[in-house]
Amino acid sequence: MPIVDIHTHIYPPTYMDLLRSRTTVPYVRTFPDAPDSSRLIILPGEDDPSAPSTSRGRPIGPEYFDIKQKIAFMDQHKIDKSVISLANPWLDFLPEDEAGEAARKINDDVNALCAEYPGRLYAFGTLPLSANTETIVKEVERLKGLKYMRGVIMGTSGLGKGLDDANLDPMYAALEKHSQIIFLHPHYGLPAEVYGPRGSEYGHVLPLALGFPLETTIAVCRMLLSGVWDRFKGLNVLLAHSGGTLPFLAGRLESCVKHDGHLKKAGKTENRRDVWDILKTNIYLDAVIYSEVGLGAAVQASGADRLLFGTDHPFFPPLEEDAKEWHSVNANYSAISKAFEGNNGAAKDVLGNNAVRILRLEE
Amino acid sequence: MPIVDIHTHIYPPTYMDLLRSRTTVPYVRTFPDAPDSSRLIILPGEDDPSAPSTSRGRPIGPEYFDIKQKIAFMDQHKIDKSVISLANPWLDFLPEDEAGEAARKINDDVNALCAEYPGRLYAFGTLPLSANTETIVKEVERLKGLKYMRGVIMGTSGLGKGLDDANLDPMYAALEKHSQIIFLHPHYGLPAEVYGPRGSEYGHVLPLALGFPLETTIAVCRMLLSGVWDRFKGLNVLLAHSGGTLPFLAGRLESCVKHDGHLKKAGKTENRRDVWDILKTNIYLDAVIYSEVGLGAAVQASGADRLLFGTDHPFFPPLEEDAKEWHSVNANYSAISKAFEGNNGAAKDVLGNNAVRILRLEE
Repeated sequence: MPIVDIHTHIYPPTYMDLLRSRTTVPYVRTFPDAPDSSRLIILPGEDDPSAPSTSRGRPIGPEYFDIKQKIAFMDQHKIDKSVISLANPWLDFLPEDEAGEAARKINDDVNALCAEYPGRLYAFGTLPLSANTETIVKEVERLKGLKYMRGVIMGTSGLGKGLDDANLDPMYAALEKHSQIIFLHPHYGLPAEVYGPRGSEYGHVLPLALGFPLETTIAVCRMLLSGVWDRFKGLNVLLAHSGGTLPFLAGRLESCVKHDGHLKKAGKTENRRDVWDILKTNIYLDAVIYSEVGLGAAVQASGADRLLFGTDHPFFPPLEEDAKEWHSVNANYSAISKAFEGNNGAAKDVLGNNAVRILRLEE
Repeated sequence: MPIVDIHTHIYPPTYMDLLRSRTTVPYVRTFPDAPDSSRLIILPGEDDPSAPSTSRGRPIGPEYFDIKQKIAFMDQHKIDKSVISLANPWLDFLPEDEAGEAARKINDDVNALCAEYPGRLYAFGTLPLSANTETIVKEVERLKGLKYMRGVIMGTSGLGKGLDDANLDPMYAALEKHSQIIFLHPHYGLPAEVYGPRGSEYGHVLPLALGFPLETTIAVCRMLLSGVWDRFKGLNVLLAHSGGTLPFLAGRLESCVKHDGHLKKAGKTENRRDVWDILKTNIYLDAVIYSEVGLGAAVQASGADRLLFGTDHPFFPPLEEDAKEWHSVNANYSAISKAFEGNNGAAKDVLGNNAVRILRLEE
C-alpha cells in the first residue's frame, strides 16, 4: 500500500529567486542582526520594521526549497509519493504582465523537480491569476502537457474578487474540461481586528488555527452560493485542512440557505445542488486536521473515499530542534488510525489509495 | 424523560419597550410602506435607509415577545422545559449609566415570565456589561436570588475588548463563585468585507452560517489563550451552535499552540490546560447544529453528557407560512436521533437529562 502526501509545499528555485529579489511582502531576506539565516515574510502583518528580525515572518531553510530535504522527510515518515505544490502566496502578488511568464517558469521548474524522482513526486501547478483570462486558460492547457502535473493549487482571491467572480468561468471551464483538480488553500486569513487588542500576544495561533480554515470555508461557500457547481458540474476541488470548517458547518449552512428570505424570494432555495451533494460529488478533503474528532466529521461529510492524507510540510516542523520525527505528521497519522479503528481498508484508502486513484499517480 | 430546550430566545416586554423607543440600531420600528408589521433591526448592516423596509432587518411578531407563543411552540414540539434567554444584542449598546437599571428590570421581567409557568420555564439572565465592574458583579449576585435564573447569556464583546480582557476577572470570579454558567452566544459576526463584493447576493447566509460560529470560536479561543480557565478552573461556559467550530478545529488549535514560536519563547506551550481538557471540564455545547455530522464531532469533543438540546426559537421559523412544524427543530431532533442510533440513553441525556442535571431544573 502506498502512502501519498498530497499537502506538501515547495518553494522551487525560480520562486526563491523571485522572493529574494523583492523588498516588499512577500519576500525573503537576510537581516543584519542575524546574517546567517534568512527569513520568509509573506503577510503584511508579519512585516513590522520596528520588530526584531527574529519576530518577522519565519526562518526559511533548505527544507523550504531543497528537494532532497523533501525526499528525506518522505523517507523519514514512510511517505512513498508526494504531490508537491507551491506554498502561499503563489503568484497572487505579481503585476499582470509578469505573472504569465513567472507561472510558466515555476511550473516547468516544479515539473523538473518531479522528474528527478520519477514515481515519487507529482505536483499541483500554479496559475497566473493576475494576468488576463486568456493567459490563465493557456497555462491550464499547458499544464496538461507537463508530465507530473495533476491539477493546480490556488488561494481564495481569484482575480482579486474571490472565487465567486463570474470572470473566473473560463478558468473553471478549462479546469473542468481538462480534469484538473483545484487544491484550494488559504493564505489571507481574516482581518486582524477580529482577534482583538490582545491578538498578537497569542503569536500566530488565531490566524493559523482559525483564520486559515475560515478563509477556506468562506471561499468554498461563496463558490457554492454563486452556483459555480451548477455551471461546472464536473469541477473538482480539494479543500485544505479537511475543508476548513465545512464538514462541521454544512448542516447549519443548509439550514441558513433554506431559511433565507432573500434567497427564497429569488427562487434560490429549492431546485439547487445542496452542500451535501457537492461534498460527495465535487469536493475532496485532505486529512490535515490533527485529531480524529474533526477527521470523523470530514469522513462523514464527504466519505472515506474522498479523503486524502497530507502533512503540510515544511510547516509545523518538529517541536524539538534535534527531533527527527515531525509531531504534526504523527498527529495526522494517529488521527487516521483512530478514526478508522477496525476498518483498515478505509485507512489505507485515505493514506494513499484514494490519491493514487483520484490523481492518477500510476500513469 | 423531559425534553429541555436550552437555546430559546425571548424579547420580554421591558426589552421591547426599550427597542421601540430607539431610532438607531438596535431598534424595532413600523415603516410607512408596511404599517401593519414591525421590523427588528439589530445590525448596522441591516439598516440601509435606501433599501425597502421589507429588506431591513427581519419581521418581528408576537413569537418574539409573547410568552404564550413560546409555550405553544414548546407544546407543538413536545418540549417540556425551556431555559429562555434574551436575544442578541442584549444590553451591549446601552450607555454606562442606563445598563444597570435596564438589566435589573429585564431580568426581573424574564423571571416573572418564568413564574407564570412554574416547572416549564427557567432563564439565563443578562448582565449590564457597559456599566462598571461593581454593577456587573452586583447583578450576578442579585441573579442568584431570582428563583428561575440559571446563569447568564452573553455576547463576545465583554466590556468592549472581548472576553480575554483582564478587567472581566471580577465578573468571572463572581460567576464561578455562584456557579452561574455563561451561555456564550454570537452577535457581531465578522467584518462584511470577508464575504466579498457579492456577499449581499446571498442574503444573510454567510454572516449567519459562518460569521456567527466563527465569532463564537474566536471568542472562546481568546478566553482559552488568555488563561481564563487557568485562573477560574470552575467557570462553566455553554457554547451556542455546538461550539461554533471549536470541536472541529480543536486539533488544529492544539497543533498551532504547540508549534508557535512566540508562545514557546514565552513558556506558554507546556504546563497548560489544553483545549481537550477544557472541552471536557468547563465547556458545554448546545446541539443546535442541524446535522449529525457536526453533532458527532461535538459529542466526541465534549462527551454526550455535556451536550444539550436547543432550538434557537423564534429564529429559523417554519419554511412554509402555514406550516405548524418547525423544520429547524426537526432537523436538530433528527441529528440527535441519527448521531445516537442504538444509544437511546445518550439521546435522552442530550434531549433533557443533561440540562436538568447541569442547570438544576428540578429545584
